[in-house]
Amino acid sequence: MLRIFILGTGNLGGHLVRYFDSLKKSETSDVALKGYSNASKKVLPGINAPLIENIAQIPEVDMILLAVGDNQIEVLNSQLPLDGTTIVHTSGSISLDALNHHKNRGVLYLPQSFSTDRKPHFNEITACLEASNDHVLQQLGLLGNTLSRKRKYLNSLQRKNLHLAAVYINNFVNHCYTKGFEILEKENIPTELLLPLMQETLEKANDLSPANAQTGPAVRGDSITIQSHFDSLSTSDQEMYAAITRSINKKINL
Amino acid sequence: MLRIFILGTGNLGGHLVRYFDSLKKSETSDVALKGYSNASKKVLPGINAPLIENIAQIPEVDMILLAVGDNQIEVLNSQLPLDGTTIVHTSGSISLDALNHHKNRGVLYLPQSFSTDRKPHFNEITACLEASNDHVLQQLGLLGNTLSRKRKYLNSLQRKNLHLAAVYINNFVNHCYTKGFEILEKENIPTELLLPLMQETLEKANDLSPANAQTGPAVRGDSITIQSHFDSLSTSDQEMYAAITRSINKKINL
Repeated sequence: MLRIFILGTGNLGGHLVRYFDSLKKSETSDVALKGYSNASKKVLPGINAPLIENIAQIPEVDMILLAVGDNQIEVLNSQLPLDGTTIVHTSGSISLDALNHHKNRGVLYLPQSFSTDRKPHFNEITACLEASNDHVLQQLGLLGNTLSRKRKYLNSLQRKNLHLAAVYINNFVNHCYTKGFEILEKENIPTELLLPLMQETLEKANDLSPANAQTGPAVRGDSITIQSHFDSLSTSDQEMYAAITRSINKKINL
Repeated sequence: MLRIFILGTGNLGGHLVRYFDSLKKSETSDVALKGYSNASKKVLPGINAPLIENIAQIPEVDMILLAVGDNQIEVLNSQLPLDGTTIVHTSGSISLDALNHHKNRGVLYLPQSFSTDRKPHFNEITACLEASNDHVLQQLGLLGNTLSRKRKYLNSLQRKNLHLAAVYINNFVNHCYTKGFEILEKENIPTELLLPLMQETLEKANDLSPANAQTGPAVRGDSITIQSHFDSLSTSDQEMYAAITRSINKKINL
């Protein structure tokens, strides 16, 4: 039985608390949530595990899971007691060594975009794990297994690159959606109109690989359409349009 | 009954020929495909309607549908007989007036990315229509209705902007997928790992609007992570990363 404590109840932490707390009802679970804490000292409704207001009063557990902002990880590295409890952070871009005061340290990175009001499907997400030793590796295996059958061991550099890839396919993709929707809204065209194309873009990228699925004026080298698009954009939108167009072109001419 | 002829059997034209040809089996259809032609003079397998090798021999029809490259539309505007037959093009970025030799002219734009080997779901796509007069409008209504219950009347400028929006949410999104996948492949991380995040990005953008769904280092102003990403990119990838990051930042600070 792995006894855990969760520090931070934001988008990810809140979902982890709810998920592990709900396991209490099942007698077969290998993971037991013993409590949680957050900066605002707010009790989460419907959770059996207790809110601990002061991190000096964290109960005896096998693992403390940090679901906090990236800049808090180093702070907690110094603040948490050096009693051998395993400390695990959940950040994509922070290395394992940010927890170097603790000999038992690990990372559980879930490459997904979490929101408070959207229930995540943990079983679809690959739990990306890193551990400082075999003891932690075994603990993380147990924890990861409880969340998802999909697991992958990545070192800090691989994870950092995975996080960078996630910035492209989540943040940057979402911003392209934003720019496309802006154009439609200006013309009073309902944005639902593009939903089938958004869905097809995703499915095609997965079926063919995105490099093989690319179409459009940039890949065709259709300079007349590109120039006409460019002219119809505000100067503040031209830089991004031009940079992506050039990057598509470079990819083709490799 | 609307008798049509399809000129061009590429990604879109091929699917339209197959779709309208299959309607022949149904006695209730309002649209009848009388033939098709293509530059390579190739018979499409399994199609009942005849291939016409020479455009001077197009049979008598009510409408000729052009599913050709953008630059062919003006050429055909001059070449097609001026006998009152309705001429309709299918391009997002070309105006209705590119067919100005023909008093009965129209546009049927289907904002989707078509591929030869993927069967489109026409009923999910909004048929975007434009017509030079009421006669053509009625014909296009009949044609559009046969493809999809979703229809929208857009003028040439609106359609051009819709096409520009489609470039963002299809071509540019796909290129962000390409760049993300490139990073994973370099690290030997299977790209399926990011599929749940790609799917969630799409669903969240549609539920919350992409502007409200934006997360990540650019929107947080996390300059340390941004700099570290930037440093790990090749110089040829830095321009696009920087341009999108700046654009996300501008959007936030509006």
